[in-house]
Amino acid sequence: MRTVVVTDPPRADVDDAATLGNHGVATVHEALGRTGYLGPEFRPAWPGARIGGTAVTALCWPGDNLMIHVAVEQCRPGDVLVVATSSPSTDGLFGELFATALVRRGVRGVVLASGVRDVAELRVMGFPAWSRAVSAQGSVKATPGAVNVPVVLGGQTVHPGDAVVADDDGVMVVPRGDVDRALAAARAREEKEAATRAAFEAGELGLDRYGLRDRLEELGVEYVPYEKWTP
Amino acid sequence: MRTVVVTDPPRADVDDAATLGNHGVATVHEALGRTGYLGPEFRPAWPGARIGGTAVTALCWPGDNLMIHVAVEQCRPGDVLVVATSSPSTDGLFGELFATALVRRGVRGVVLASGVRDVAELRVMGFPAWSRAVSAQGSVKATPGAVNVPVVLGGQTVHPGDAVVADDDGVMVVPRGDVDRALAAARAREEKEAATRAAFEAGELGLDRYGLRDRLEELGVEYVPYEKWTP
Amino acid sequence: MRTVVVTDPPRADVDDAATLGNHGVATVHEALGRTGYLGPEFRPAWPGARIGGTAVTALCWPGDNLMIHVAVEQCRPGDVLVVATSSPSTDGLFGELFATALVRRGVRGVVLASGVRDVAELRVMGFPAWSRAVSAQGSVKATPGAVNVPVVLGGQTVHPGDAVVADDDGVMVVPRGDVDRALAAARAREEKEAATRAAFEAGELGLDRYGLRDRLEELGVEYVPYEKWTP
Amino acid sequence: MRTVVVTDPPRADVDDAATLGNHGVATVHEALGRTGYLGPEFRPAWPGARIGGTAVTALCWPGDNLMIHVAVEQCRPGDVLVVATSSPSTDGLFGELFATALVRRGVRGVVLASGVRDVAELRVMGFPAWSRAVSAQGSVKATPGAVNVPVVLGGQTVHPGDAVVADDDGVMVVPRGDVDRALAAARAREEKEAATRAAFEAGELGLDRYGLRDRLEELGVEYVPYEKWTP
Amino acid sequence: MRTVVVTDPPRADVDDAATLGNHGVATVHEALGRTGYLGPEFRPAWPGARIGGTAVTALCWPGDNLMIHVAVEQCRPGDVLVVATSSPSTDGLFGELFATALVRRGVRGVVLASGVRDVAELRVMGFPAWSRAVSAQGSVKATPGAVNVPVVLGGQTVHPGDAVVADDDGVMVVPRGDVDRALAAARAREEKEAATRAAFEAGELGLDRYGLRDRLEELGVEYVPYEKWTP
Amino acid sequence: MRTVVVTDPPRADVDDAATLGNHGVATVHEALGRTGYLGPEFRPAWPGARIGGTAVTALCWPGDNLMIHVAVEQCRPGDVLVVATSSPSTDGLFGELFATALVRRGVRGVVLASGVRDVAELRVMGFPAWSRAVSAQGSVKATPGAVNVPVVLGGQTVHPGDAVVADDDGVMVVPRGDVDRALAAARAREEKEAATRAAFEAGELGLDRYGLRDRLEELGVEYVPYEKWTP
Repeated sequence: MRTVVVTDPPRADVDDAATLGNHGVATVHEALGRTGYLGPEFRPAWPGARIGGTAVTALCWPGDNLMIHVAVEQCRPGDVLVVATSSPSTDGLFGELFATALVRRGVRGVVLASGVRDVAELRVMGFPAWSRAVSAQGSVKATPGAVNVPVVLGGQTVHPGDAVVADDDGVMVVPRGDVDRALAAARAREEKEAATRAAFEAGELGLDRYGLRDRLEELGVEYVPYEKWTP
Repeated sequence: MRTVVVTDPPRADVDDAATLGNHGVATVHEALGRTGYLGPEFRPAWPGARIGGTAVTALCWPGDNLMIHVAVEQCRPGDVLVVATSSPSTDGLFGELFATALVRRGVRGVVLASGVRDVAELRVMGFPAWSRAVSAQGSVKATPGAVNVPVVLGGQTVHPGDAVVADDDGVMVVPRGDVDRALAAARAREEKEAATRAAFEAGELGLDRYGLRDRLEELGVEYVPYEKWTP
Repeated sequence: MRTVVVTDPPRADVDDAATLGNHGVATVHEALGRTGYLGPEFRPAWPGARIGGTAVTALCWPGDNLMIHVAVEQCRPGDVLVVATSSPSTDGLFGELFATALVRRGVRGVVLASGVRDVAELRVMGFPAWSRAVSAQGSVKATPGAVNVPVVLGGQTVHPGDAVVADDDGVMVVPRGDVDRALAAARAREEKEAATRAAFEAGELGLDRYGLRDRLEELGVEYVPYEKWTP
Repeated sequence: MRTVVVTDPPRADVDDAATLGNHGVATVHEALGRTGYLGPEFRPAWPGARIGGTAVTALCWPGDNLMIHVAVEQCRPGDVLVVATSSPSTDGLFGELFATALVRRGVRGVVLASGVRDVAELRVMGFPAWSRAVSAQGSVKATPGAVNVPVVLGGQTVHPGDAVVADDDGVMVVPRGDVDRALAAARAREEKEAATRAAFEAGELGLDRYGLRDRLEELGVEYVPYEKWTP
Repeated sequence: MRTVVVTDPPRADVDDAATLGNHGVATVHEALGRTGYLGPEFRPAWPGARIGGTAVTALCWPGDNLMIHVAVEQCRPGDVLVVATSSPSTDGLFGELFATALVRRGVRGVVLASGVRDVAELRVMGFPAWSRAVSAQGSVKATPGAVNVPVVLGGQTVHPGDAVVADDDGVMVVPRGDVDRALAAARAREEKEAATRAAFEAGELGLDRYGLRDRLEELGVEYVPYEKWTP
Repeated sequence: MRTVVVTDPPRADVDDAATLGNHGVATVHEALGRTGYLGPEFRPAWPGARIGGTAVTALCWPGDNLMIHVAVEQCRPGDVLVVATSSPSTDGLFGELFATALVRRGVRGVVLASGVRDVAELRVMGFPAWSRAVSAQGSVKATPGAVNVPVVLGGQTVHPGDAVVADDDGVMVVPRGDVDRALAAARAREEKEAATRAAFEAGELGLDRYGLRDRLEELGVEYVPYEKWTP
């Protein structure tokens, strides 16, 4: 494992990242062409948070949060701290004290491939956290790792400075170079969805709106009345 | 996989299904003789919902929600949409737009063997959903499947028209032909439980109420004071 | 499996146990030297509960809650009921009726290696429960087990009379003989944490507060500006 | 749970079932239109077995093998014993003694939703077994269940008398009424696969053999030389 | 976590432990009254090994094998090394070099709650290993733990000096004080099983041998011919 | 998802990749500084294979192997085909016919994030495969994806042309630019391991060889004779 702290990586614009956060994970994921989602294992510590920010990354040894201490110093207002571990771990590497330090630095939330603790306190503070586990299991500060190198969480590579979007549907990453495209596409998608919502409320069907009836026929889907059907 | 849409299957009575919903999953499951429960993997997208309705079923290819569009058209007031996939998948096949269309049709909720997304929006709408996962991962409309055929979720076969009951304890199916028996037995069980509750509040023990002391003796269970016990 | 009910085991002081509960799982776990935590699989049935009490233990056959009925009689005010199964099971061995009986006896909560049901009712009653699963699956009363023998849950041995602490971070056990040490250390840790919290709010970094900068250098961690870094 | 033993259900032809076994799971699964597979959780206790037979089904309470004793008596030459449990369990409900009794009755193998034990002995005996777990955990004979009712394993319903096919790829069910269709389609598929195998050995590509190049173009797949590609 | 190395704990007799190994896990587990099994997650690195020995225990930090180095020195001929971690981990803490050192000391095998690596080499050496995972992921030597303290693996407490039995069915522990009882009961059980095996080979049924027909009737199990059965 | 096929990416030297394969996963993983391992979920379809080759990557939609057909054409002698899916899937995307086509092209093996089938046939052919699952579940050819783009499997990014090493311990990736360093370090490590092996065979302890006794003392590890130890 490289033992390096990369300082001052360029970030996506923090206001753009916040705007992506307002669009939400499902919309931005679709807008980007269905990529970037970290998968269903990443769950919020408490429901209702919705954020967008710029990634500061940390790579920790399992059971060891030394590099989170290092990463805190690298955080700026608008960042989201993203923590990976070098092998699978559920330990609670992050809790209320770290959250206190991050709030002071203007950080918008944290995403961990391992566990989080003090979830009652985080809920009271309103500090958003997503993780694979809730665990009170504590950690040591013995083994080095890296900060602001690319890390992989949930099948996605997160580079420092990428935009990270998270809400009750989970977490996604928007590569820094794709933020403009994501913003435009998300806006377009929201408009399209608003129109679809109105149509659905008025009783139109997706079958008609998306022109699916012909496709069903091509695909050989038959309609059979129940009384004529044999399994 | 059969590629068929079975239309107008007979349903259990929608009011009966609602009544079963009021009894709740644990009660109806016991009333039916401890059958029909879809297991602990099916969780509500948000807490507090409690429904009963009649099943419209859809069988989808993983990562593909084409057949949900087809199923929407088959739904009537009082239905619950039940979605299986042909192999294990966590993808978010269902979200707010589908919920909008289903609300319009009077559908009471959705149960998915895969994932659901837009959970914050569903909570706000008050549209109930149960699934194996929350996932923003989007889907295509490329591969056919079936609607209103029997499907298997969580070890239970759901036939179209069966009653589906769901609450914070999960989801269960009551075969259409068993609804009357389930209603009567659930009512009886609730009365019995009310009496038991009152007895327990008054300090009676299950050991006495259920006549278990003799059984314990037959089974060879001994009582030993702590100071005389050797592990 | 031994089929024994051990009566009147000595308990940790119930007020001490309550005090540990106020400190919370993460704090007490750290105070004890990072031991005793039952792991991330044990989750609360509803959020926000925080308890400490003394363990009454039950060992059940999977799908069978006979020994919980036996255990209820052994419970006293201030106890926490702790239920293990002889092999892995998610079945809902515990629900509202048991909770009613335990409330009457002054029991503070329940911890189950298997599943819990009636979670909506438990939330309304305010009766705290932690378990590995939520499941409506019911149980029989056919196979004997044991009460107030040492049981293992989540990699920890719980002896009857030990202190059990549980909150939104999960569950931990404090051996009866370690309660005094745990109380003192938890108090000390809370004071230290309060000071650290104040320091972090004032902008001090963990790197400085814990003297980690020298260690990082010893461990060979280098700081490299982004523009000079090559992956 | 129904407590019934259904006797003498009609079976698929045992020679037909054996022939399906020779074709193997992957081939028959494809031949049937990609249905009937019990999923990747069912693994052989030892590698290399390949069987086809007719299902005798048993539904057991977790941790209880009473109904397997009942099912043994219902088995005839050419059968495969298929065991489900009423809730998830890994316990080792089946071992060498049951295998001895089944060998005597001409049974071809066993499929269990729970666990199997004595796997070294089964390997030596050459008795094939598929299960979700290997577990030495023993069972009681206390709670009733059912024999020769439809059971669900791995998302598939198995009726008594259905053909069951199993090999190193897992287990599948062929409904009794579909055996003729499955035999014909499997034979046709094997011929087609033999031709494809020969073509692939000769260097033909699937892209050409299946006419996929046009589809790729329709789907918008572009070919870009590495040096011109930007991620 | 205590940081202590307990030296020279008393051991069960190594020949007795070997004899238990010959009986095998399933037999000894039953002989002890169905206790002591570490569960289905512990799998052999290669099939066919069968051992019994006396436990030397190690408790490691995740991703750290320092205490295994310490434990090697505490091992004597006839021992089995048993390694737990303070929180869940799959890392490969043990491989060929450790096996070489243990072979030299007469150790009979290793059991790990985490992962093992070099499994091809272990198979060639014939050194038996059971673990929860196979993983090449390497470890550091930074954080202390304990040797020869009681450890918990798979829901069982292993004390140093206990007998450990392992084969293709998994791993079990026999407390040192129960070895004589286990030996006698295992011998008796094998005799009984030999008689049962002969009876089953001769066509006797478990229903008759275990007198289960009356119990079935008491339990309300009915026999119904297929043509008269309605689901 | 990008729908692109990148042609002729530069590869690591195929002989170098083969040499890394001979060193094996555990050795190369350590040599690289404990990075690059895909984790314990990737298991060989049959035991005993050991390969090294250059990556051709494919990114598939779940349940769809269209892009594997595309990838076959991009394969050259010495390659290893590496297949990711856009969301979690266990379906058997790869089997004997693909293996036949790859053997013809000189491909050394396949690594899949999803499932593999025809494992008995692959074992007979001697074609090595690693995957997260064995599954007979078949796939369609309906949805596009990408070939020779970077893909993530098991927390590691694999670029086309990287070296891939796989054996009974699992799978790892060596970035193309790190192959020379990996070769040198693996050679050095093997020499060091050979010396350590000889020392361990001669009875030297890791405690002495790695100079760990001082560290233990610094870390506060005490040695206590069993009779003086209190838990």
